[in-house]
Amino acid sequence: MEIRFLGTSSAVPSIKRNHPAIVLKSFGEVFLFDCGESAQRQLIFAKISPMKITKIFISHFHGDHILGLPGLIQSMGFRGRVDKLDIYGPKGLNNFKNSILNLGYCLIEFPIEFHEIDSGIVVENEEYIIKCIKTKHNVINLAYSIEEKKKPRFLREKAIELGVPVGPDFGKLHNGEEVEVNGKIIKPSDVLGKPRKGKKITYSGDTRPCNEMVEIAKDSNILIHESTYINEDNDKAEENAHSTARDAAKIAKKAKVEKLILTHISTRYKEDTVILQQAKKVFKNSYLANDLLKIEL
Amino acid sequence: MEIRFLGTSSAVPSIKRNHPAIVLKSFGEVFLFDCGESAQRQLIFAKISPMKITKIFISHFHGDHILGLPGLIQSMGFRGRVDKLDIYGPKGLNNFKNSILNLGYCLIEFPIEFHEIDSGIVVENEEYIIKCIKTKHNVINLAYSIEEKKKPRFLREKAIELGVPVGPDFGKLHNGEEVEVNGKIIKPSDVLGKPRKGKKITYSGDTRPCNEMVEIAKDSNILIHESTYINEDNDKAEENAHSTARDAAKIAKKAKVEKLILTHISTRYKEDTVILQQAKKVFKNSYLANDLLKIEL
Repeated sequence: MEIRFLGTSSAVPSIKRNHPAIVLKSFGEVFLFDCGESAQRQLIFAKISPMKITKIFISHFHGDHILGLPGLIQSMGFRGRVDKLDIYGPKGLNNFKNSILNLGYCLIEFPIEFHEIDSGIVVENEEYIIKCIKTKHNVINLAYSIEEKKKPRFLREKAIELGVPVGPDFGKLHNGEEVEVNGKIIKPSDVLGKPRKGKKITYSGDTRPCNEMVEIAKDSNILIHESTYINEDNDKAEENAHSTARDAAKIAKKAKVEKLILTHISTRYKEDTVILQQAKKVFKNSYLANDLLKIEL
Repeated sequence: MEIRFLGTSSAVPSIKRNHPAIVLKSFGEVFLFDCGESAQRQLIFAKISPMKITKIFISHFHGDHILGLPGLIQSMGFRGRVDKLDIYGPKGLNNFKNSILNLGYCLIEFPIEFHEIDSGIVVENEEYIIKCIKTKHNVINLAYSIEEKKKPRFLREKAIELGVPVGPDFGKLHNGEEVEVNGKIIKPSDVLGKPRKGKKITYSGDTRPCNEMVEIAKDSNILIHESTYINEDNDKAEENAHSTARDAAKIAKKAKVEKLILTHISTRYKEDTVILQQAKKVFKNSYLANDLLKIEL
């Protein structure tokens, strides 16, 4: 898995921070979480082809999280994309779809499926499960988690002991199929180890600290949480339905995550490392996102 | 007058070229010609406050020329703008207005007036005249010219000779008012020199070479002309209704402009200085625009 921050500002960008957008490369796919203005150019700086993006997840419909989508889609079209693109977002997505497809002369010739979603499972397949939950913002905001489904270890010695011949049957059993050996049925559970936890990443979108965030972030390897304000601006965080550094760190602690990455940083702070220092006081394993930061796990 | 190129790419941006947008500072105003995606961040790099922009002129409604407008307007709002903003553009502007004001949750609290315009005079006051003309593109495109109205020289010696007392009457005469001196009417024409040509700048938007471009660019000090393609890609220029370097240079020559600035450069060329070399062969005083290029005149 590779996470790449394309933009890490809040509503207004700065010299060093572009609008929010985060890439996750995994499972042979490229996911994009939010798509702030100029995400398409940030992709160029990050050397990630927009043609490889398979799914886009929108947290909410404030301009800083969505205004890069019309241009990104149009550029995909210019480059001759034919592959389907799936776009997920909360209530309002269908309305947004109509607006962006009516922005000037816009001809999109590749298939795009818009999925207006609610809290719950967003996508599930053999390799991963993506969930979302409504959190507390001044408009509907969805936080997303993506979790790897990791197969239990295959107990090779035990399989051989049970008479399973080395070969294709090993793969079948590991993939959950029963096999017959000398008239006897061998079940996957006979030759598989304990369930193993896959990697999990959670992204908050814009939110006040809330139980829903703790719930969806539970045991994540990485929690990417907005931290628009420093602790001293808690009144502004309340007023604008955002989080402070302390808020984000408390969520990380309660959810028992491994690492907290702070993003959506207000450009009002010249020295925004204060945000990191404040988070670290509550949750030691905190990091501050910067544009084009790459994290591998 | 100061011209600042915020973006100089064509449809798809590159590492070094952002989408089209050009600032002109003059007459105590800040004009923006086209507003490609991320124009608001390019303004930050150029150290130009978006709050000072008075008028925006859109050439046409292809995404690369307009997708920065929703974010720019929203950021003006976030920063507490109260001053009116005027936006001019061809047929389609009112439809575009409805789309951008419906992009997600968008609350604009300062006054914006949208002016859907046709060929002719766009704005005229004592200091300048802005005109536009329809050119040849695959959608309606307007090229714009902005021309300073320069007052004739005030012939001080002649005014004194005619008995005009040194003082406020000098100003009145220079501003076109008659004054009475000892019962005799003195007309402005009695004390003013020959008409003087003010500075003139013309911007093509996206266009095929055409007589309309020659007409509007006539005698400009600076012609900013699209040059999407090198001469060898003339077939693509025809197909997509754009200009080659040679096309742009020929227009500059026919219109007898002082300087030609080439912009809207296709990102397909690794060595885009070829475009400049090709233009120079036809029109010597050619220059290639780059992002953040500043020209003073």
